[in-house]
Amino acid sequence: MIFTDSKSSNFRAEFEELLQRGKMDIAHVSAIVGNIIGEIRTDKNKALKEHIAKFDNWTPVDDSDLKISTESMKIAYDNIDEKLKKALHLSYDRIKAYHEKQKPKSWFDTEENGTILGQKVTAVDSAGLYIPGGKAAYPSSLLMNVIPAQVAGVENIVVCTPTPDNEPNELLLAACHLCGVEQVYKVGGASAIAAMAYGTENIPKVDVITGPGNIFVATAKKMVFGDVNIDMIAGPSEIGILADESANANHLAIDLLSQAEHDEMASSILITPSQKLADEVKIELEVWLQKLPRQEIARKSIEERGAIIVTSDMDEAIALMNEIAPEHLEVATASPFELLPFIKHAGAIFLGHNTPEAIGDYVAGPNHTLPTGGTAKFFSPLGVENFMKKTSIISFSQKAINEVGEECALIANTEGLTAHEQSVRVRLKK
Amino acid sequence: MIFTDSKSSNFRAEFEELLQRGKMDIAHVSAIVGNIIGEIRTDKNKALKEHIAKFDNWTPVDDSDLKISTESMKIAYDNIDEKLKKALHLSYDRIKAYHEKQKPKSWFDTEENGTILGQKVTAVDSAGLYIPGGKAAYPSSLLMNVIPAQVAGVENIVVCTPTPDNEPNELLLAACHLCGVEQVYKVGGASAIAAMAYGTENIPKVDVITGPGNIFVATAKKMVFGDVNIDMIAGPSEIGILADESANANHLAIDLLSQAEHDEMASSILITPSQKLADEVKIELEVWLQKLPRQEIARKSIEERGAIIVTSDMDEAIALMNEIAPEHLEVATASPFELLPFIKHAGAIFLGHNTPEAIGDYVAGPNHTLPTGGTAKFFSPLGVENFMKKTSIISFSQKAINEVGEECALIANTEGLTAHEQSVRVRLKK
Repeated sequence: MIFTDSKSSNFRAEFEELLQRGKMDIAHVSAIVGNIIGEIRTDKNKALKEHIAKFDNWTPVDDSDLKISTESMKIAYDNIDEKLKKALHLSYDRIKAYHEKQKPKSWFDTEENGTILGQKVTAVDSAGLYIPGGKAAYPSSLLMNVIPAQVAGVENIVVCTPTPDNEPNELLLAACHLCGVEQVYKVGGASAIAAMAYGTENIPKVDVITGPGNIFVATAKKMVFGDVNIDMIAGPSEIGILADESANANHLAIDLLSQAEHDEMASSILITPSQKLADEVKIELEVWLQKLPRQEIARKSIEERGAIIVTSDMDEAIALMNEIAPEHLEVATASPFELLPFIKHAGAIFLGHNTPEAIGDYVAGPNHTLPTGGTAKFFSPLGVENFMKKTSIISFSQKAINEVGEECALIANTEGLTAHEQSVRVRLKK
Repeated sequence: MIFTDSKSSNFRAEFEELLQRGKMDIAHVSAIVGNIIGEIRTDKNKALKEHIAKFDNWTPVDDSDLKISTESMKIAYDNIDEKLKKALHLSYDRIKAYHEKQKPKSWFDTEENGTILGQKVTAVDSAGLYIPGGKAAYPSSLLMNVIPAQVAGVENIVVCTPTPDNEPNELLLAACHLCGVEQVYKVGGASAIAAMAYGTENIPKVDVITGPGNIFVATAKKMVFGDVNIDMIAGPSEIGILADESANANHLAIDLLSQAEHDEMASSILITPSQKLADEVKIELEVWLQKLPRQEIARKSIEERGAIIVTSDMDEAIALMNEIAPEHLEVATASPFELLPFIKHAGAIFLGHNTPEAIGDYVAGPNHTLPTGGTAKFFSPLGVENFMKKTSIISFSQKAINEVGEECALIANTEGLTAHEQSVRVRLKK
């Protein structure tokens, strides 16, 4: 763990290391992933079945073996505990309500010469959601990907999830039933991304692919980008915390660990002007670590990728955090909204002492799929817009084209495009 | 040229060919582009200078030779004809007005238990615009890329454009002055994309790269995607026209040719239920072709990639056009707005007999950078949002977390993430 002060002589070198966090070197998996995609494009389900036998330890026989039945989803849903059912419904409802507010509208504007200009916003026809399986199979990931697609109005929603030993994760199945998803395939990794990007005998080709995954999944998404749209290329999870002395060190420590427990590669970074708070959090981290079932993962993450940085003041803390551009940012200060205007880059901002990051993973409403590794400088949270696209609308009257046609024809002519010029000129009437 | 009827026996095979238009096989240039990017990342301006010597036929000596002076932009602007100046200003003003309407706003909503949820929308810090040079150097491309970045509020705007023989395109320079762009570099191709993605001694690393280009530029954009955001991967230009007998065949012919004159690879496709119109347009195409300075390019494009398709009715015509998902779509019918609800996929729709596609290239206002090759099914026109990103905003009160905290903790526990669970539990107060 980096435990440092921004005034220390080697601070900038230590800090640069944090800025390099989560940078994935996909070069070494590119060839493998390229081959996998090529095999799926050529041999479709035949290749899928071979990949499943190799990676997931079971052998589908018919094409229909790849699909999970809606009956099994219903059974899984019926089997879950009532309290959990209620919690998942609360989560579903709140995520849906938030995303409905986010949905963009078509719009237009008119000019008195008869011009109409606007933008039509429509859902894509089909979306493919990748949901990790095995030990990292989270029903919340399904909700966070399905709901924005549903709110967008996508007609055809396909889910792919790896199913080691042909044993589907029951909670994931239950969540599929809850969301009303019907096309779920037991296919994982780069193969799943290729299957959804190009289609197979029974897995439809989609327009947009979203969802988290390991480096093979991320690389496959990048490779099929252009043939389909994708949400983002995401890496390990991370949290940044800006805090002052009003913060509770015990709470901040468990917040840091809530990222660290995800993954040894996760980053948890506290930046504060308070040396006292920094010292206390360091102690509380160890207290909490001893109590965690996932202590081993969390400890490795904190030791290798955690950081506590003490700054001269809050302005400096914010400036450093803007450089980091964390996926999750907690602002644990007395007046957090006062700082909001100065925070430039983060996937999601959690304001105040009652807003732990975990509340955003499940029930707050905003999406938990967020840009990592500093890409919050240019990527956005997953949302309804990832499942929609825009079309410009242009309508000119005779009067409108008369008013601007000469100028248009002149620019076209200057660019040497005389057919452009003529297509306008033939419509001008004096 | 495909001149066919949807009832003909081999129609579907011919149509499938149209659906494959613009599919770029980037595999054969990937290795070359990968090397170029690697060289720029390692050797920065030294590599840039070598690439310029090789591809653009001049040899920069100092790093400062790469940059175009703002004085030369001012001189170029002062030298252009008053009429053209007026036309470019009209274009600038209309593009700006449209994009301002498009700019998304930050928003929030509150709940009576003290919850605040929202989305903060902010500009990226820096953008890199690629503008082709040489014979395809269009000042309109500069306007269409710069203005959305400026409206978004991007502080740092960088332009790269290849400058063969070290002779900048005077119109492009004038447009730079008009737009107030100051950082313009004489760098082109994949080298320019790499320079903006990773930075060199004097070209800053940017967050977002946009702009048109050849297959090397498109491939480089795909390769750097993830390290920066990009707008889209675009191919040759295309136009689709839906028309009925109210359309003017002479006008439609020159509209088709206005795409064809761009590029031998451009596609121009008319779909109509009127055999009479189809026959007339075919004749008018030849009449117009003889008059065009760019006849050779336009003829090759029309012959190899043009199509006129006669359908049973307008519904079938629309269905086929939705499969094509053209970059530009003209609706040249008596009541074009009646068809708008049924048109699912297009980059931009030009409605009515007074709205030639070319009006959208220069003065209408909407962006002329549009998704090609069927990618309008999932990509959107270039716009202000390409230069902005979103951050989720979450703030819970004590009462709010009390209300949903148990459910949140339960889901976290079910997913095996106990630090998540505890980070919520420690904040619950009865």
